[in-house]
Amino acid sequence: MNTEKKTDIAEYGEFGLIDHLSSKFENKHSTTIKGIGDDAAVIDAGDHYVLISSELLLEGIAFDLVYTPLQHLGYKAVTVAVSDIYAMNGTPTQLTLGIGISSRFAVEELDSLYEGIRLGCKHYGIDLVGGDTTSSVTGLSIAVTAVGRVDKDKICYRSGAKINDVICITGDLGGAYMGLRLLDREGRVLKNIADPKPSFEGYEYLLRRQLSPEVPMSLNQLLADAGVKPTSMIDLSDGLASDLLQVCRASGVGAKVFLDRLPIASETFKMAEELNTDPVIAVMNGGEDYEMMFTISLEDRDKVLGLGGIEQIGYIVAEDRGVNLTTPDGEMIAVTAPGFK
Amino acid sequence: MNTEKKTDIAEYGEFGLIDHLSSKFENKHSTTIKGIGDDAAVIDAGDHYVLISSELLLEGIAFDLVYTPLQHLGYKAVTVAVSDIYAMNGTPTQLTLGIGISSRFAVEELDSLYEGIRLGCKHYGIDLVGGDTTSSVTGLSIAVTAVGRVDKDKICYRSGAKINDVICITGDLGGAYMGLRLLDREGRVLKNIADPKPSFEGYEYLLRRQLSPEVPMSLNQLLADAGVKPTSMIDLSDGLASDLLQVCRASGVGAKVFLDRLPIASETFKMAEELNTDPVIAVMNGGEDYEMMFTISLEDRDKVLGLGGIEQIGYIVAEDRGVNLTTPDGEMIAVTAPGFK
Repeated sequence: MNTEKKTDIAEYGEFGLIDHLSSKFENKHSTTIKGIGDDAAVIDAGDHYVLISSELLLEGIAFDLVYTPLQHLGYKAVTVAVSDIYAMNGTPTQLTLGIGISSRFAVEELDSLYEGIRLGCKHYGIDLVGGDTTSSVTGLSIAVTAVGRVDKDKICYRSGAKINDVICITGDLGGAYMGLRLLDREGRVLKNIADPKPSFEGYEYLLRRQLSPEVPMSLNQLLADAGVKPTSMIDLSDGLASDLLQVCRASGVGAKVFLDRLPIASETFKMAEELNTDPVIAVMNGGEDYEMMFTISLEDRDKVLGLGGIEQIGYIVAEDRGVNLTTPDGEMIAVTAPGFK
Repeated sequence: MNTEKKTDIAEYGEFGLIDHLSSKFENKHSTTIKGIGDDAAVIDAGDHYVLISSELLLEGIAFDLVYTPLQHLGYKAVTVAVSDIYAMNGTPTQLTLGIGISSRFAVEELDSLYEGIRLGCKHYGIDLVGGDTTSSVTGLSIAVTAVGRVDKDKICYRSGAKINDVICITGDLGGAYMGLRLLDREGRVLKNIADPKPSFEGYEYLLRRQLSPEVPMSLNQLLADAGVKPTSMIDLSDGLASDLLQVCRASGVGAKVFLDRLPIASETFKMAEELNTDPVIAVMNGGEDYEMMFTISLEDRDKVLGLGGIEQIGYIVAEDRGVNLTTPDGEMIAVTAPGFK
């Protein structure tokens, strides 16, 4: 190891670290259309684009096996991977998987994990085409790579949002994070009890949002059928703050989002109240909702909102106006990027 | 966790576990040409195939940071990934990367790792198109996915070896494993010494084989120029025993390999002697050489051996004759698969 100069990773923000590390790389291959900096890489395959997106899920960071049934974890790993393909307006087709397991795992536990992966693949209509296993001296590691395809004229980047575009969101936000808080609370309360009976009644929705989120997979087709092509799209995996900033940064624009337009489920509100916290924090920084955020031209607004299940949360403004959350009494709160977690 | 039935992973051999886990998966997508069971997945992209291969490298299993300079590790991660693409007779084009890092890593150390990746990408002429970082509470994790392409009529599977085909190998084998043994020895000897001076003189070749192996990237073009298409191909990553068995199993054939035809470098012999071990064990079970093994029709033998740097180690026989290593005095030793490591 280098023992000379030491710069703490925390000195870089999340975006800053990736920017720094990738700054010396140059794309040279003629088939590379888009590299680092969007939901998926885009590769020219002649009459269409191939999309590739990889995610690395590590025990203790992406999941806690104390709370997470292995079958749910397998299913969620598939969702996490394919979400990036849908976010390019594409269709996932295949998945590869690398799993690092310690010797404490029994075959039956691996079976549960793979059963979740199988159900996830079935749900999204994709094939598992690579399934490497390696041993691990530390925790469970799951590497997933989703492969997909998209017609060249249909692809959506993060970089296409224009001033006055409408910012839309599918479903509701913050539920996955509140589900995690609930699991964490029950886990701590019941830690030293022999026959623990966690109390999840009335919160099944939050548990589902955390343990087995699903990508709104019909969205792209619905928009296409309505004759609408989003100007930009991103999946909401890191929290609205981070994901909105990514789109604004890539598009060179600002955004005005209205706090009272953020879609929040009643269970999320209720749980936030119980925990004496603000549900908006869950929406902005919680992440893992796997809903889609996309921008559309103002003229497409009525067509899109008429499809149902989609909310307008704000609109795109000029870059120098910044990215802000506006409260009902007109106060503007600057949206800031979280650091490297 | 499931606390009912517990089957130890070690009860399955390496192949058996992957077979078991993937047995419930069925390929359904029309573009999936080949899934689990070869070096890379094969996806139909119209006028060519897209190849995808993922590897997961975990600290303490795939590498030991005590021995491994981070720049070398980055370079090696690229080699490990692209090797599978070449083994399909393809050309790598892009790479995605997922890295899990603990907070003990400084930015300068990550820079070294990425510099190695950059040099590897440059060497193989590929682009880094995805560069995710996540934190890790355990060790360093590196997930690499290589993307490549191959003309439809050029693809080589593991499954094409025919009786009487000649088994060929590039370079020499066992050196990477002996390099690891050397690093391990010096590490143990110098463990409690304040200013350690490891003694690698005369063994630079073995260190290079372990720390920065290179795929014989010109092989595919050389064979094509000579008008030869291999009947099967695999990269030698797991040791000759395991890799030869994979080809024989996929092709439904046996093999006869001659012990005195195994290509072994003089440094590998010398190190084996010093360590009082058999270099053939390093060849058969050591792994990580990243040379290629391929089979060709008997009629192509002279053309291929005339290219240089390629050795015939044996030939393909009927399945019921098994997979055997023949010693100079005619003794036959059955080649067996290692268990799950």
